[in-house]
Amino acid sequence: MPHFTIEYSANLDKRVDMGTVVELVRKAAVETGIFPLGGIRVRAVRCEHFAIANGNPNFGFLDMVLRLGEGRDLATRKKAGEHIFKTLSAYLDPVFASSKFALSFDMQINDKETSWKRNNIHDVLKVEAAHG
Amino acid sequence: MPHFTIEYSANLDKRVDMGTVVELVRKAAVETGIFPLGGIRVRAVRCEHFAIANGNPNFGFLDMVLRLGEGRDLATRKKAGEHIFKTLSAYLDPVFASSKFALSFDMQINDKETSWKRNNIHDVLKVEAAHG
Amino acid sequence: MPHFTIEYSANLDKRVDMGTVVELVRKAAVETGIFPLGGIRVRAVRCEHFAIANGNPNFGFLDMVLRLGEGRDLATRKKAGEHIFKTLSAYLDPVFASSKFALSFDMQINDKETSWKRNNIHDVLKVEAAHG
Repeated sequence: MPHFTIEYSANLDKRVDMGTVVELVRKAAVETGIFPLGGIRVRAVRCEHFAIANGNPNFGFLDMVLRLGEGRDLATRKKAGEHIFKTLSAYLDPVFASSKFALSFDMQINDKETSWKRNNIHDVLKVEAAHG
Repeated sequence: MPHFTIEYSANLDKRVDMGTVVELVRKAAVETGIFPLGGIRVRAVRCEHFAIANGNPNFGFLDMVLRLGEGRDLATRKKAGEHIFKTLSAYLDPVFASSKFALSFDMQINDKETSWKRNNIHDVLKVEAAHG
Repeated sequence: MPHFTIEYSANLDKRVDMGTVVELVRKAAVETGIFPLGGIRVRAVRCEHFAIANGNPNFGFLDMVLRLGEGRDLATRKKAGEHIFKTLSAYLDPVFASSKFALSFDMQINDKETSWKRNNIHDVLKVEAAHG
């Protein structure tokens, strides 16, 4: 945890650098201060086939879902989500200015009773921090 | 909202026109009358690697998840889902007739407390409607 | 049901055979004994764009979500999840040994009231079983 999954219409290829977007979201997630660094995973899935609103093929969308673990209260989640959304939204200002576009972001909480993980990134980050 | 995400086995490429499928779902969603037009987003994700049932590589699947906002009662959601599923299922009759295939559709409700959006499609649709 | 969706960082292409992974998960799901064979659908989605932890592009992740139907108690779900996760984790031992990597697995339960399906795989499996 946390997992950020972005889905986007393929017509954004010409308008957005998706490598920059995932990095931007990663940094914004770090800045919230509520996530362990080694657990942050952001990714984007390109959707070749899509249909939006009245079907206009020039419309675009970018939708992000965050799945996170239990244990953070609503105020904390709202504040963190607000920060991440604002960062992402500001970066996409040019897309809103030049095209018709829908941006969205939702959070889901994973059930800790049915959650498994194995991760050796945490350890290397500790070593880097100690020697950094 | 609403978000329709389709995942499908790559072997459907030969059997189904996925551009037609997303457009079909979009139209069916509009027909339910319960969604704001500018919020409808349908997309499909092709899954190159898959394993179904006993592992037979000729088996196929198409799975759709709808995430929608709070505020519609169960009867309304069931009626809308029924319409969309029937439309999609009927379109896929030839796939069922010619192959072994699994179709599924589930709904999830997003928590409105942790939901962010920005969308300039609504406005252009209003303008189009006014100038008809 | 059940639906297993894997998302993975594109840099795993060089380290993991994803066709083997989906087949491994399928077999492990069958072994749990709690799923109807004809309903098992495993797929993997490659994520070209990703950002993990401190942004190191050599870090990798594989995240799996299982969506399953209602009607199985927590102990049953935990035991099944444990088996599937252990199988997957053991297969990925070389990835953990040779790189920094995050593996995760979560379960979600679908609302049976808003769930639709059509599946002709069940029938052919029965025929095969009868004549097998």
